Amino acid sequence: MSETAAPATVGDSEFDRATTLTPRAPGAYDIDLPAGWTIFGALNGGYLLAVLGRALGDTLPHPHPFTISAHYLSASRPGPATVRTETVRTGRTLSTGQASLFQYDETGAEVERIRVLASYGDLASLPDDVRTSAKPPAFPPLTHCVGPDDAPGSADQQPIAERVMLKLDPATVGWALGQPSGKGESRAWFGLADGRDADPLSLLLAVDALPPTAFDLGLKGWVPTIELTAHIRALPAPGPVRVAITTRNLAGGFLEEDAEIWDSEDRLVAQSRQLARVTLP
Amino acid sequence: MSETAAPATVGDSEFDRATTLTPRAPGAYDIDLPAGWTIFGALNGGYLLAVLGRALGDTLPHPHPFTISAHYLSASRPGPATVRTETVRTGRTLSTGQASLFQYDETGAEVERIRVLASYGDLASLPDDVRTSAKPPAFPPLTHCVGPDDAPGSADQQPIAERVMLKLDPATVGWALGQPSGKGESRAWFGLADGRDADPLSLLLAVDALPPTAFDLGLKGWVPTIELTAHIRALPAPGPVRVAITTRNLAGGFLEEDAEIWDSEDRLVAQSRQLARVTLP
Repeated sequence: MSETAAPATVGDSEFDRATTLTPRAPGAYDIDLPAGWTIFGALNGGYLLAVLGRALGDTLPHPHPFTISAHYLSASRPGPATVRTETVRTGRTLSTGQASLFQYDETGAEVERIRVLASYGDLASLPDDVRTSAKPPAFPPLTHCVGPDDAPGSADQQPIAERVMLKLDPATVGWALGQPSGKGESRAWFGLADGRDADPLSLLLAVDALPPTAFDLGLKGWVPTIELTAHIRALPAPGPVRVAITTRNLAGGFLEEDAEIWDSEDRLVAQSRQLARVTLP
Repeated sequence: MSETAAPATVGDSEFDRATTLTPRAPGAYDIDLPAGWTIFGALNGGYLLAVLGRALGDTLPHPHPFTISAHYLSASRPGPATVRTETVRTGRTLSTGQASLFQYDETGAEVERIRVLASYGDLASLPDDVRTSAKPPAFPPLTHCVGPDDAPGSADQQPIAERVMLKLDPATVGWALGQPSGKGESRAWFGLADGRDADPLSLLLAVDALPPTAFDLGLKGWVPTIELTAHIRALPAPGPVRVAITTRNLAGGFLEEDAEIWDSEDRLVAQSRQLARVTLP
């Protein structure tokens, strides 16, 4: 956002407009996937998870994804898409649903891009009981972190970079200068560029918005997600969140990325893990 | 197994017989869920994951679950069940499928117990490239660990306890004596009681076979799994495996359990995470 504009609000931001679905029939929604959320021509996986998460929030009786598992089948491109949802089970405190996103091949046939299973609940209804041993990782202040303009990397000037506020911990961006740490870490302050505060849907975007940990391990190239599961654990407080991603096991051409997201009140609001494929040199 | 019997082999063990499915039609299998794999009357969640994993291995062109996500809908009881599978996508190195397990209510109507999404590949085909920073956790030798007979807990004398070889790290079983450590940890050597070696299917059993970390946090009662995702990362070497489970975030009545499984050659062969619900005092 410009320095003088008021921040966008939840429900009236570019992210909200980009995830708006048009109901066509029960359990079927249309959406025109916008080019603004792409990186190297493909829609960002976290953005797509948010689209599917929003469709399920509309379909199910509970509002928030407690746990959502996505299997990525083929790359999504800007343009028309259909989301189909199914209610699997409804309960008092949790309900479970399934959703798929389809696009179309040159003959007009549907091609499935992603399939998700998710269990939804109401985060606002949970008791405020927190007994966690998790502590936020050390993060430099936001003003000491670097954006795409400060540390040119492969993702600068990509459309999605204009829509998210990503300030990377300098300790995890050595790869942009040819000096990866080798630790398999990626950390950043995250927000939406128009100032919209975080909510469960934008956390689904945030878990897959940082540079891949593979870069910090010294690998290059595309790191396609095979599967990503996110747990939203609490409603985030206003303000930017901190996202910390680690990889412990790179083996056989696959790695896991474990993300955790901390809000401005030092609460662990989301955890995710994905299995991704790397290009071995 | 008795001290003198030869160990059971993969394909010819009680676990293999208990997960055998009878094809009824394309994508439909019958199974009579045996009482031997129950705990407090319900089939163990890891055993059920192995049943669904085996059905998908039969349906898909690839043999091994690289990543499998299960949403648990209702408790499974011993008796007849149907597994339905669907091929979602097939590719050269990975294929994706879906499976559900159904039982029957008093009117004979199908009730869905679990639904899974999974991506399968061939672990034997992966390059032997390992660049991991993960190290096995400290484990006492198997002979210094304790079984149900040594440390009577709520799960001793349950049918499943006769079929798995579980030797618990004494540091994580203080709860059985009223002295939980409060750390949220659970560790054990794991095998099958008849001596069958581990394979990807038995690893699906192993990720959910230990006492819940909630006990080590001082909580009591049933800890139902909402969702569990397991990544099988390598074919396990012969011999018992080590399973280490940790919980970092207990909040709002939910917790995550992160499991990792190490084989006898110190290789990280599986990682899993589940979201579970606890009973707050």
